[in-house]
Amino acid sequence: MQKDSNSSDPLNSIRVRHRKRSTEAPPDATKPNGSKLLVNDRNKYKSMLIRTYSSIWMIGGFVFIVYMGHLYIWAMIVVIQIFMAKELFNLLRKANEDRQLPGFRLLNWHFFFTAMIYTYGRFLSRQLVNTVTSDKLLYQLVSGLIKYQMFICYFLYIAGFVWFILTLKKKMYKYQFSQYAWTHMILLLVFAQSSFTVANIYEGIFWFLLPASLIVINDIAAYFFGFFFGRTPLIKLSPKKTWEGFIGASITTIFSAFVLANILGRFQWLTCPRKDLSTGWLYCDPGPMFKPEHYSLTGWVPQGFPWKEVRIMPVQWHALALGLFASIIAPFGGFFASGFKRAFKFKDFGDSIPGHGGITDRMDCQMVMAVFAYIYHQSFVMSQSFSVEMILEQILRNLSFEEQHILYMELGKIFHERQLMQ
Amino acid sequence: MQKDSNSSDPLNSIRVRHRKRSTEAPPDATKPNGSKLLVNDRNKYKSMLIRTYSSIWMIGGFVFIVYMGHLYIWAMIVVIQIFMAKELFNLLRKANEDRQLPGFRLLNWHFFFTAMIYTYGRFLSRQLVNTVTSDKLLYQLVSGLIKYQMFICYFLYIAGFVWFILTLKKKMYKYQFSQYAWTHMILLLVFAQSSFTVANIYEGIFWFLLPASLIVINDIAAYFFGFFFGRTPLIKLSPKKTWEGFIGASITTIFSAFVLANILGRFQWLTCPRKDLSTGWLYCDPGPMFKPEHYSLTGWVPQGFPWKEVRIMPVQWHALALGLFASIIAPFGGFFASGFKRAFKFKDFGDSIPGHGGITDRMDCQMVMAVFAYIYHQSFVMSQSFSVEMILEQILRNLSFEEQHILYMELGKIFHERQLMQ
Repeated sequence: MQKDSNSSDPLNSIRVRHRKRSTEAPPDATKPNGSKLLVNDRNKYKSMLIRTYSSIWMIGGFVFIVYMGHLYIWAMIVVIQIFMAKELFNLLRKANEDRQLPGFRLLNWHFFFTAMIYTYGRFLSRQLVNTVTSDKLLYQLVSGLIKYQMFICYFLYIAGFVWFILTLKKKMYKYQFSQYAWTHMILLLVFAQSSFTVANIYEGIFWFLLPASLIVINDIAAYFFGFFFGRTPLIKLSPKKTWEGFIGASITTIFSAFVLANILGRFQWLTCPRKDLSTGWLYCDPGPMFKPEHYSLTGWVPQGFPWKEVRIMPVQWHALALGLFASIIAPFGGFFASGFKRAFKFKDFGDSIPGHGGITDRMDCQMVMAVFAYIYHQSFVMSQSFSVEMILEQILRNLSFEEQHILYMELGKIFHERQLMQ
Repeated sequence: MQKDSNSSDPLNSIRVRHRKRSTEAPPDATKPNGSKLLVNDRNKYKSMLIRTYSSIWMIGGFVFIVYMGHLYIWAMIVVIQIFMAKELFNLLRKANEDRQLPGFRLLNWHFFFTAMIYTYGRFLSRQLVNTVTSDKLLYQLVSGLIKYQMFICYFLYIAGFVWFILTLKKKMYKYQFSQYAWTHMILLLVFAQSSFTVANIYEGIFWFLLPASLIVINDIAAYFFGFFFGRTPLIKLSPKKTWEGFIGASITTIFSAFVLANILGRFQWLTCPRKDLSTGWLYCDPGPMFKPEHYSLTGWVPQGFPWKEVRIMPVQWHALALGLFASIIAPFGGFFASGFKRAFKFKDFGDSIPGHGGITDRMDCQMVMAVFAYIYHQSFVMSQSFSVEMILEQILRNLSFEEQHILYMELGKIFHERQLMQ
């Protein structure tokens, strides 16, 4: 479309572009030459200051929560989730139409908590099983919850569904159905992200912290590279993003991934998976993934070079894949959010964080990343094959202690017979 | 209810019933009084004829497919799914806007097939593993597919996501984002339903056939009860539905559920679960669920009564729950569809079935029902037949020797930890 108008009337299109530029920048900004459109902008400095200040607070709080442990990180995820849902629910509603539908917002939150019980319920009870195996009564309660959790969630969902239908109001149908659809989209988005994130945390904080940090690093690097060198607009959706920022950030992120994985990989607090809900100290065998391997540099570096070998953890190679994804694909989460904002004509998803906009504005790329990290970890890192894990879960879930023991003895017998045969 | 209307005005109800029998012929029914707004309607007769005719064809084809077996039913589900997606995709698009977005429809189908690989992939490969355990190479191929299936699907999804963002066109943002959201809603709806349905089929055709039949019975009964006795409108969303139809249908459905479960429960073809992809004959121990229990009627019936006892399968009590759901809650699926049609101002979702509208129009309640049947079966039926032997069989069938050993060690570790705790 735009191409057409360019070719049909190039002069006009240049004029249009020029006029647009001067509206975005303050009217008195000096323009040394036309190509440096993104380097000089007075507002940039003020907004950068605010943004830096709240970024520091966020990062500090984040580090403290990570130090506190799995359960606290989970709680943080839930809080973020509630804020995001709130921002998104608010976004698309029309106050005047809502006034005629008492209790309609409540329905959104009913679905929200149903989704929460669904996504976290199973996970929570599996962790609980490991936490309280000694108490038989609690074990049975938890088993019951696991067993009927799906049914309970379905029941709650259907209750909301029936409620929705019974409160349909003439002339409001279209608004109500659109809201219903959006509620589902929002919940899908918010819970897909956060349930994967929580799963990552319990596989080892490493698998949450590294991807999340890479996104932050990429964002910050893109911001600064764009700030100082940005000239060439990257994509129409986000006029502030530049190729210089994108490429600079990519290199920074991939390099950081490799280094950061080595640093984070040294702490058992971060690398050990946690199978229960306790918050105490963690000890485990980190496994071969985090055992440094020695690579000789002889022949690769000049004679006088101080290092004769490097020690690289295998996990660092995986970190490269995460870095690549964080810098190349994850930004599309941001483009998506930008496009969405433009489509529905608003600037930010909210105003919770000064200089950043809403929580959702900060989470756009994190979401894409968390899902990738989870699936990457499941597919390429987890040493145990998936099927063993699945069957083990089935055993712990569905069999009583006695039955589990019978199964164990049976398996032992079979192995014994096999050995006799060989 | 039927009794009520009979007793209140026997003559009239006979008259109505008589008129109805001749319904299939003359379209010149006279209108006795104004309050019977739903009993007399000239178009009703013609549409009823068409509808009956195509219903018979559908039911015939359906019975044949069920006779052919699991794989064929699955194929039918997939065909229905494709038609539904097609109808729904068509519904909300605007032809004039699509013309400016070449390849945009293709994206919908890209997501559709990604969802298909995701929902069926895991299921399919699990069944394949059981089909071909003897062939080591194929086994390894299938294991690989299982292991990387999630990653492949994620990759495909992200490819579509990036494609979407790169093809965003100025001034079309809102349309494109809405389409994107609707695509997700449609896929969620279509695949939630069908993946649960396919799971039901392989748990035993019984668990697919009974719920699906109950919906059909409820639909037909509501139609006829409404046709003959319908006076009191039930809900504004569907002006053709009446309380008489609803209540008459409920009683019919619950009764049918109890009887039908007994009939279907006698065929091993329907009750045995299938663990592989073959289509041959099925033999199994149907389990206690399908073993008739004797209930003595002495003391409950008069002396001369011919039956002294009844034989009831335990599954029949479960069938009552399914019948209750099919008649009370599942119709809300229909109300939802009606409301949706009114909200967006169209009559039918499509025109694939003469007299019925689109496939989607026939599937609205089936969807709600299939999900319920699956969750009900998982929560209240399956657990009873879940035994050590079944899991042991799974282990020996699905895991390699190494994996079996890992599982054994893991179990041992868990027992050891448990003992330490006590």
